[in-house]
Amino acid sequence: MASLSREALQQENKFVMETAKLIEKEILSSPPTRKEKVINFLHPQELIDRVDFKLNESGMNQEQLLKLCKDAIKYSVRTSNPMFVNQLYHAADPYSLAGSWLTEALNTNQHTFEAAPFFIVLEQLLLREVRSIIGWESGDGIFAPGGSIGNMYAMTLARHHKYPEAKRKGLAQCGHLVAFTSDEAHYSIKKSANWIGLGMDNVITVKTNEFGEMIPAELDFAMVKAKSEGKIPFFVNATCGTTVLGASDSFVAVGEICKKHDVWMHIDAAWGGSLLLSKKHRKESLKGVELADSIVWNPHKMLGASLQCTLFLTKYQNLLKECNSASATYLFQQDKFYDTQYDTGDKSMQCGRKVDVLKLWLMWKARGTNGLEHLVDNACHQALYFQSLIKERPGFRLVIPRVQCTNVCFWYVPPSLRGQEETEEWWKELGQVAPKIKERMVKEGTMLIGYQPLGTKKLPNFFRLVISCQPPLTNDDMKHIADEIERLGNDL
Amino acid sequence: MASLSREALQQENKFVMETAKLIEKEILSSPPTRKEKVINFLHPQELIDRVDFKLNESGMNQEQLLKLCKDAIKYSVRTSNPMFVNQLYHAADPYSLAGSWLTEALNTNQHTFEAAPFFIVLEQLLLREVRSIIGWESGDGIFAPGGSIGNMYAMTLARHHKYPEAKRKGLAQCGHLVAFTSDEAHYSIKKSANWIGLGMDNVITVKTNEFGEMIPAELDFAMVKAKSEGKIPFFVNATCGTTVLGASDSFVAVGEICKKHDVWMHIDAAWGGSLLLSKKHRKESLKGVELADSIVWNPHKMLGASLQCTLFLTKYQNLLKECNSASATYLFQQDKFYDTQYDTGDKSMQCGRKVDVLKLWLMWKARGTNGLEHLVDNACHQALYFQSLIKERPGFRLVIPRVQCTNVCFWYVPPSLRGQEETEEWWKELGQVAPKIKERMVKEGTMLIGYQPLGTKKLPNFFRLVISCQPPLTNDDMKHIADEIERLGNDL
Ligand SMILES: Cc1ncc(COP(=O)(O)O)c(C=O)c1O
Ligand SMILES: Cc1ncc(COP(=O)(O)O)c(C=O)c1O
Repeated sequence: MASLSREALQQENKFVMETAKLIEKEILSSPPTRKEKVINFLHPQELIDRVDFKLNESGMNQEQLLKLCKDAIKYSVRTSNPMFVNQLYHAADPYSLAGSWLTEALNTNQHTFEAAPFFIVLEQLLLREVRSIIGWESGDGIFAPGGSIGNMYAMTLARHHKYPEAKRKGLAQCGHLVAFTSDEAHYSIKKSANWIGLGMDNVITVKTNEFGEMIPAELDFAMVKAKSEGKIPFFVNATCGTTVLGASDSFVAVGEICKKHDVWMHIDAAWGGSLLLSKKHRKESLKGVELADSIVWNPHKMLGASLQCTLFLTKYQNLLKECNSASATYLFQQDKFYDTQYDTGDKSMQCGRKVDVLKLWLMWKARGTNGLEHLVDNACHQALYFQSLIKERPGFRLVIPRVQCTNVCFWYVPPSLRGQEETEEWWKELGQVAPKIKERMVKEGTMLIGYQPLGTKKLPNFFRLVISCQPPLTNDDMKHIADEIERLGNDL
Repeated sequence: MASLSREALQQENKFVMETAKLIEKEILSSPPTRKEKVINFLHPQELIDRVDFKLNESGMNQEQLLKLCKDAIKYSVRTSNPMFVNQLYHAADPYSLAGSWLTEALNTNQHTFEAAPFFIVLEQLLLREVRSIIGWESGDGIFAPGGSIGNMYAMTLARHHKYPEAKRKGLAQCGHLVAFTSDEAHYSIKKSANWIGLGMDNVITVKTNEFGEMIPAELDFAMVKAKSEGKIPFFVNATCGTTVLGASDSFVAVGEICKKHDVWMHIDAAWGGSLLLSKKHRKESLKGVELADSIVWNPHKMLGASLQCTLFLTKYQNLLKECNSASATYLFQQDKFYDTQYDTGDKSMQCGRKVDVLKLWLMWKARGTNGLEHLVDNACHQALYFQSLIKERPGFRLVIPRVQCTNVCFWYVPPSLRGQEETEEWWKELGQVAPKIKERMVKEGTMLIGYQPLGTKKLPNFFRLVISCQPPLTNDDMKHIADEIERLGNDL
């Protein structure tokens, strides 16, 4: 039974620190090592049988609760383990984690200066800094709950830019709008097209070259064709760091085509945006980024900010508010005594909005722009190193002959499949290797690495190694990854 | 400069615990008291001058960082102070906070069983429990990043239910769709209408009675009228706990009308949904809730889960997936060795999704359903008590003669305005009182309570007291709130 006294609350607060101590002991105190398991795998039903998930009438004491927290740790994937290279996010940067804890303890809301003075100011300043890194002199932006919703911000903003009356009248007023994206782009563009009423079929996919880069001439052609059919291009999504191959489209070429057709260019840099911080890699992967009308960047991916941390940025200054405002008088009163331009809530499509800026700011402050660059460069370096390792190693075969972002895509060809004619049957069998190795590694818990087929290029299942800043990986880790795959796949 | 060694990482991890200790000292160790300030107010520019927000090339040491954390605490609103009654959220429940910290430390992603086995299972079980509390035997659901996006889930799902082909073809195929909501409903319905391509003008607002409840006959009439104009009603939003007056629509009456017209009924219970846990209050405020096709509930509001914690629930079993799936092969491979129906990511319109379930589960486990009920009942009780206090107190005047949810809306009439004829001019002057009192309380930092006008009822600025579960407030707090308003407004 909950007691209502302040003293009881103080007692309850103690549990927060008990949990912190548990986290210290189980997660933070020892440097993550490859020897620990990445996962103690149980099938869903086994997990249900093993853990006391059930909600009851009466509560538990703090000791029992700590046991539940231990279970949560025990059966969760350890993203802080160097051998977790399964997704486009990895461990949280420790400084980001500290920022998250403080954010949670302060439990406030990024909608008005009144409710979050410190964080509102901080968000504006940090977004301005990122815009200047992009190369924009002015503009606007907002933190969004994830890159998918960030991309939806972009599509709705582009639509508003072209048809401001759609805000009131709806899409019915707009004619047959179409958007363009490459066939390697993230699926959130299509999901957004569904939600915003455009329809997934009205996202025209543009072919990519062998590296997964959008072919500019194909984009131009697709636009001309759409127009000739009476359709109205309003949005092009270019990608910096495609999900699987890590490809970056040519923003210079795409930007020119968008300019020619007077269409909004968005860059989905959810994954590759962190390369902005590397003088070396931004030149290759982000040339022409400033030509974009809007950009999404997820520091919660490569950079190691804890989930969720997504920046939506646009070079237009008032458009976000024009597009999204509803002027609720209960929140955004104009008779407040402070400068209400700081009440950013009306730019947002959300009402309450989680504070996602403190964690990014704290890690940036801790490491400086140079420190972050160093980490990004290391991630890229390790990817290149891994590629060089497996290039000559028997049984490993690269899917494309280069590393893009930190993605290294490769097959492992077990001995039984080597030196044979590569018939259709052979490729089919090869496609079954990655899932089998994956199953073994999950069950042993030694490593997690993703695999997938690539339908657009008719490629059967291959591994995708992706490297992030946290924890910083080493050459030794790279060797271990190759060894481990060989160990698990050797007898297949 | 960031070091890349594991030992450096261990050193960095220490900072997390340093931050925890700071939070313990500054926020958790003493029970929150009314004597502490709710806010150390600075205007935006003053804040910018006072705090070292700037990002630099080089990093800082841990001591300097801790100083920044202290600044963040110092200049943030203390939502844990009992005198923070400004918004529909308040302090985080300590058990929720513990759950948040653990969530952040584990830093994983609610999209596949592979990446978050524990949390995926937990989310499914907890959502099932809530559906059974609602009174549904089956159905589906998902945690969403906030109630606004929850409401957008509802609108897109309703649209899909009626026009599944819109997913591919877009709204162009659907005829002139219209949605209905009361004039007291939350603005997120209109914001969503903008985003989903419906257009804000195609949200037809239905009049409310003096208490802010949708008038069922008006809804029926509006629907008949829309149909006669060739429009197609597809969605009705009913509210449990309107933002300002706390009103709950009659779900029984609205449900009947929706049934008659074959239209989706959504209940936005972002604010009032926590009353589900009170046997007493659910009878009054949630009668007929099971008639809804979908429901949004924000435990991050009244219940005290930390931000963000939003449940979207629907009584249909496969619709979420049908509506939102894009079948990305890189995440939702069908050749996985475990039961892939647990990969919930394709039901979501997000890709990465923050884990928001652990915190709610942990507080529920700690307190039991009974303990949560006790806290909800206390919040309702204190609101009633406050109302009874000010009913007879000179200078206080209720906006409506009853408490709904925990909202108490009232004017403070300063002595200089008492006993006068209540002309238009008088009301205008009264409307300037709340902002002035608010300015004083913000500058002194003694309390934060919201005020707003109510355009729909042509009412000038009044205070809205809203009470949540955390920290549990007392009769004494209620007296203090009334006293404080009087103290600050006495001489106006
Ligand atoms: C009735 C109602 N519905 C929905 C919302 C939106 O919830 P959120 O702030 O989580 O987006 C609010 C927010 O105050 C609300 O009061
Ligand atoms: C290229 C790209 N864009 C966007 C996203 C979506 O980001 P989020 O998972 O934050 O929604 C992803 C996710 O993997 C991605 O790879």
